Amino acid sequence: MSHGEGRLPRALKECGALQFGDFVLASGAGSEYYIDIKKASTDPAVLRIIAENMAVRMEEDGIRPDRLAGVVLGSVPLAAALSLETGIPYVMVRKEKKDHGTGKLIEGDLREGETVLVIEDVVTSAGSSISAIGTLRKAGANVTDIISVIDREAGGREALADIGVILHPLITASFILGRGR
Amino acid sequence: MSHGEGRLPRALKECGALQFGDFVLASGAGSEYYIDIKKASTDPAVLRIIAENMAVRMEEDGIRPDRLAGVVLGSVPLAAALSLETGIPYVMVRKEKKDHGTGKLIEGDLREGETVLVIEDVVTSAGSSISAIGTLRKAGANVTDIISVIDREAGGREALADIGVILHPLITASFILGRGR
Repeated sequence: MSHGEGRLPRALKECGALQFGDFVLASGAGSEYYIDIKKASTDPAVLRIIAENMAVRMEEDGIRPDRLAGVVLGSVPLAAALSLETGIPYVMVRKEKKDHGTGKLIEGDLREGETVLVIEDVVTSAGSSISAIGTLRKAGANVTDIISVIDREAGGREALADIGVILHPLITASFILGRGR
Repeated sequence: MSHGEGRLPRALKECGALQFGDFVLASGAGSEYYIDIKKASTDPAVLRIIAENMAVRMEEDGIRPDRLAGVVLGSVPLAAALSLETGIPYVMVRKEKKDHGTGKLIEGDLREGETVLVIEDVVTSAGSSISAIGTLRKAGANVTDIISVIDREAGGREALADIGVILHPLITASFILGRGR
């Protein structure tokens, strides 16, 4: 498994999405790198590379979903681009709001029993992914896999495994801090 | 100008995004047709046709922006697809919240003085488009044109003209109710 060797890490650095230095994350923890994934997903050349790499990864790992799901907002362009790349339709999953608005949580068609592959930009502790998977499962979807551009390796993989979902990241933190530097 | 004759209206009908009947809109007004544009934008074949038609329309109407802008949420997949089609980068514009959250209103890079083409799914009275244009202009963007899949012809074109923005719809309500039926 290639951990996104080659074009993708280079493209992330070139578009400024991946930067090295001393950063303090929103959580207060320090980090030797910083990811601004929206710099990548709003650049069409990088967005195309991400979609192509995700399609290859689906093939390699034997993931054949009925539908993709992009978590609002950051993963929606990734899901749309991967949908164009693979021909598989997608839904958009909104985050559950504390005040329970009247808006639909899932935009786009989803049929009971469909296998849905969740698309994420960056997985850290996987909190927002787990919430989206809960929303999809409540709607009758079968969710067993999630593909992300980055796995920050901060407990997300384990938290997802606990709910029966396998994380397939294109790039991991240890790759970024090792050969990806 | 073709008003989206051909593939697009047919694709919208086939995917169920465009339906004819007696409908009551959220505003309480009656309508002889109903558009569920997210049925179109989450179907990769239809999303591709929309992006191709928008690219042709840009060419025909001489629209050469530095950047595209997709209004959250419905127009983000359209902006991403048109970005992939044209190679022009895009930003995502969130709706201004009444409670003024801390979130950024514009996601993605935007430089002062850039010409930005706003992408919309459906324009009715253009309220949300006008709000997004205000956000983009406050950030220094030059906005003179907006391209939408549908113009419901409910005052949007005139309201946009009042703020110096030309609406370029792929399909109009009168086309839908005439030859598009």
